Parts: sequence; structure tokens; C-alpha cells
Amino acid sequence: MKTVSQTKAHGGIQGVYSHPSAVTNCEMTFAVFVPPLAEGAKAPVLWYLSGLTCTHQNVMDKGEYRRLAAELGLIIVCPDTSPRGDDVADEPDNWQFGKGAGFYVDATEAPYSQHYRMYSYILDELSGLIATEFPAADMNRQGIFGHSMGGHGALVMALRNPDRFKSCSAFAPIVQPSTADWSKGAFEKYLGAESSAWRDYDATRLIENGHRFAEFLVDQGDADGFLENGLRPWLLEEACNAANIPLKLRMQPGYDHSYFFISTFMDDHLRWHRARL
Amino acid sequence: MKTVSQTKAHGGIQGVYSHPSAVTNCEMTFAVFVPPLAEGAKAPVLWYLSGLTCTHQNVMDKGEYRRLAAELGLIIVCPDTSPRGDDVADEPDNWQFGKGAGFYVDATEAPYSQHYRMYSYILDELSGLIATEFPAADMNRQGIFGHSMGGHGALVMALRNPDRFKSCSAFAPIVQPSTADWSKGAFEKYLGAESSAWRDYDATRLIENGHRFAEFLVDQGDADGFLENGLRPWLLEEACNAANIPLKLRMQPGYDHSYFFISTFMDDHLRWHRARL
Repeated sequence: MKTVSQTKAHGGIQGVYSHPSAVTNCEMTFAVFVPPLAEGAKAPVLWYLSGLTCTHQNVMDKGEYRRLAAELGLIIVCPDTSPRGDDVADEPDNWQFGKGAGFYVDATEAPYSQHYRMYSYILDELSGLIATEFPAADMNRQGIFGHSMGGHGALVMALRNPDRFKSCSAFAPIVQPSTADWSKGAFEKYLGAESSAWRDYDATRLIENGHRFAEFLVDQGDADGFLENGLRPWLLEEACNAANIPLKLRMQPGYDHSYFFISTFMDDHLRWHRARL
Repeated sequence: MKTVSQTKAHGGIQGVYSHPSAVTNCEMTFAVFVPPLAEGAKAPVLWYLSGLTCTHQNVMDKGEYRRLAAELGLIIVCPDTSPRGDDVADEPDNWQFGKGAGFYVDATEAPYSQHYRMYSYILDELSGLIATEFPAADMNRQGIFGHSMGGHGALVMALRNPDRFKSCSAFAPIVQPSTADWSKGAFEKYLGAESSAWRDYDATRLIENGHRFAEFLVDQGDADGFLENGLRPWLLEEACNAANIPLKLRMQPGYDHSYFFISTFMDDHLRWHRARL
């Protein structure tokens, strides 16, 4: 692991790191905020998964998580959203596919299967690296949240790994990516035309298939332009209701899909996770 | 005035606006955050002046001011740092001069005097626009702060207009730009070789010349790479001590010159201003 930068902020250290990934077969960059801690103390690890077009940096710049994460003693890990590099297959003119749009799946279709394996990358390789390189990280207390495509990723990771993640929340998540306008094209290219494989990366389908999680917090702006076709939180609500999974879905009047929305409700999400970790 | 964008954030509205400026002879862009207010209520206006290379956007993205400004009821106005446009004289390879580096002076030397008049632009024209276009703005309660070059701008504006501004603070300000490595070249080009004119835009020289202000708050990171040659807060301390101006200068251990530093101490500065407005 290489240290790209380490900067003091809110009493802690906001770091950016990179490492060669054996899972995505390329150099990966990620950000970690470590709050101020007593010598030898451990802190819970909260994963933040970002949305389409983002890198590790967007939430680091605009998410406004450091003040309260420092106060609550939370380590915040922010991975990139896709493999990177000149030899990674991409559609440069398509912001909903390829680089910046890994959708947190393990692609099975060539040529994408060579690099686009963000699910295993985060769950196995990056988790292992965090455990090794950040001695303060208490890997027995992990939570996960994210925005939009990253909200989808957080819900899926939590539903498939309820023993690993003790808390999950999302800002404007794509709750049913296998049928949403802006994601089903990517699912087909990454996972093949046989859509039954897509269910493993779709929160509502996972719940239908019997996956369970303790409870979810979801914030959604009602002025979000992607609400009707891309996000559709009511589908998650239906699935959670049918499965008796407690879902705290908050429609936030006047808020859009941007980091202005995310940063507004960041404090609530950090407190939600801290109370459960 | 044209509305570029208006986005709900922390219960208020973060807007970006543009207008043709008669002072800088070009289209100018600026950002205004209006906190949630009762119908017809007024709020103090706090000006934030940005540093070298910045636009209105850097602090809007990374300054983390909205949460507390909403709570305290402060309107935050963030101007650009220079005139803009293809016909504005510039040195594109010099980040310490020209576009992004207006130094909040009224240039007297051709060709810069045609556009580089950020002092009058902010003090007269933009202030007038805020008063007209934002009915909630209480122009009888104005404060000013800024970062680096913008800290210099805030100190100078406050010292020269103590009746206008009721509070002033700065993050890592350039306290004596007329002698600092990264600013004296710009002063010469904007204001001519006759350096006595430079004193009007130099906080320490203004104090020597008899200008006074109620009190200042200055935060400075001790890991700031510009500390020794560019910032030198001890020169402000000497000037304030000699003039009996109360200065709260806080050296912050381990902090650098970035927005990670600014955002860490943003809350303290907002509370400082709110208490005085």
C-alpha cells in the first residue's frame, strides 16, 4: 500500500492510499479517515460507497463527514467506484457504464470480468488491507452506507453479508438496479443477458429470495430528478414490508440528488451507524 | 442577475449567480447561501474571500459552512477571486497573478486596471447587488473572513471599512502581501513599481498607518508550507500589539494550508462572527 496523501482534519487524519489489486487487476485508490483516538484504541469501520462518475474523492471533498466522525470515533473508508487504468475496458461516452460505474458487481462477461470485480474487491481484498494496514480498525464492528449506485452497493453488501455488516443506510439508493433505466444496461454487459444472475446484485430481489437485514435507514430527496425512473424507493419499501424488515424511509422535501443533499443528512447517518456499532 | 443554480442544503438554499459587472468589465459569478429563515426575517451577511487559484466554488464544495450557518442564521456570500473571460489580461502559467489571483486590489496599471478591480467590485457593486437581490440580507450587520489571499482581502477590507464590517477573521492570511514572495510581484504589476501605493492593500501597513479594527481571529496551521515565506502571522501580531488591536492568533498543530484545515475551524469562525453580528 502506498500513501498518496495524509492530511490533518478535525483532529484526525484524512488519508488517500493506493495499492495494486489482485482482484481488479489494476492499481486502486481509496480514502480513509481515522478519527482522533487514544493510543491503541480501536474504532468501528464505516464503509461509504459512492455513486456513478465518482471516485474516492467526491465524498472526501463534499460529504462533510469528518467533523462528526471525529467526534463519534468512526473510521470512514471510501473506495473508488470501478477499476481504473488505460487497459480497463470502458465506454468513455457512457457515464452509466465502465469506469466510474462498476455497480459493485463481479462481472462474469468478457472483457469486463478481467477488471470489474468491485464486489469481491471491497468485501475481500480491500477489507483485508484495511484490517492489516489500519491497526485502529475494529473489523468486528463494520457498517456500510452509500449514495445512489453506492446506496445500491451498500444494500446488496449488507443483505448478502449480514454477519459482516452490523448497520446499513443509504442516500437515494438505486433499490432495483436490474430493472432501472440507468443500470440494467450495465448489468447486461457485466453479468450477461441471463437476468437471473442479476438478482444477486439487486436489493429488492435479494429480499424476495430470502435475504434479511436488521434494519435500514434511507433518505431520499423528493426533488431528485432520478426518483421516478432510477431510484424508486417504494420498491424497497414494498420488499421490506413483505419481509418484515424495518425500513426508515424519509422523503426529504426539496432535496435533489447532489452532495448538497448528502451532506445535509450525513450527521443523521453517522449517528445511525454509531448507535449500532 | 442570473441564477446559475439553486440547491436546497441544510434547510437553506445554496445558490450560484452571475451578473455583468461594470467595475470589472466582465461577467462575474458568485455563491450565496441563505439559511432557513422565517418569512420576512433578516439575517447578517458574512463575506468569505477565497485564496489563490480558487473561484466561488471551492469553499462552497469544501468549506463545510452550511450546517452551522443554517443553525446560526448567517447568509454566506462567496465572490470569485478575479475577473474572468477571454479578454481579461492574464499570465496563464503563473498561479500567483492574473485570473484566480486578483488580490482584492483595484489595479492602477494598464492593462490590468481595465478588469482587476476586485476591491471596489466586492465593496461597492456586489454589496449593492446583494442588498437589492437578497431581501433577507441585513446590510447593517456584515462580517468578513477569508483564506490566504482571501484572508489578506478580509483584513484589508475590515481595516479600511470598520464601519461597514462588524467582525473579521481569517484562515492562514497573507498578512503582509507587499513583501511576501508570492504576492509582491502581483502588487507591482497591478499597482505599479511605486510601492507606497501598496500600503493601502497590506494589513500590517494599514495598521502602521493608523487604521484600526475592533479585534481579529486568525487560525494558522503550523504544518502549512507557506507559513515562513508567504503568511508570517507574527508580522500581524507585531502590528496589532503595537496598535493595541486585540488579535486571537491560534497556531494549530499539524494543520496545513488546505480546505481540510479551513473546514476544521469553520465552526469556530462562524460562531465568532455570529457573536459579533
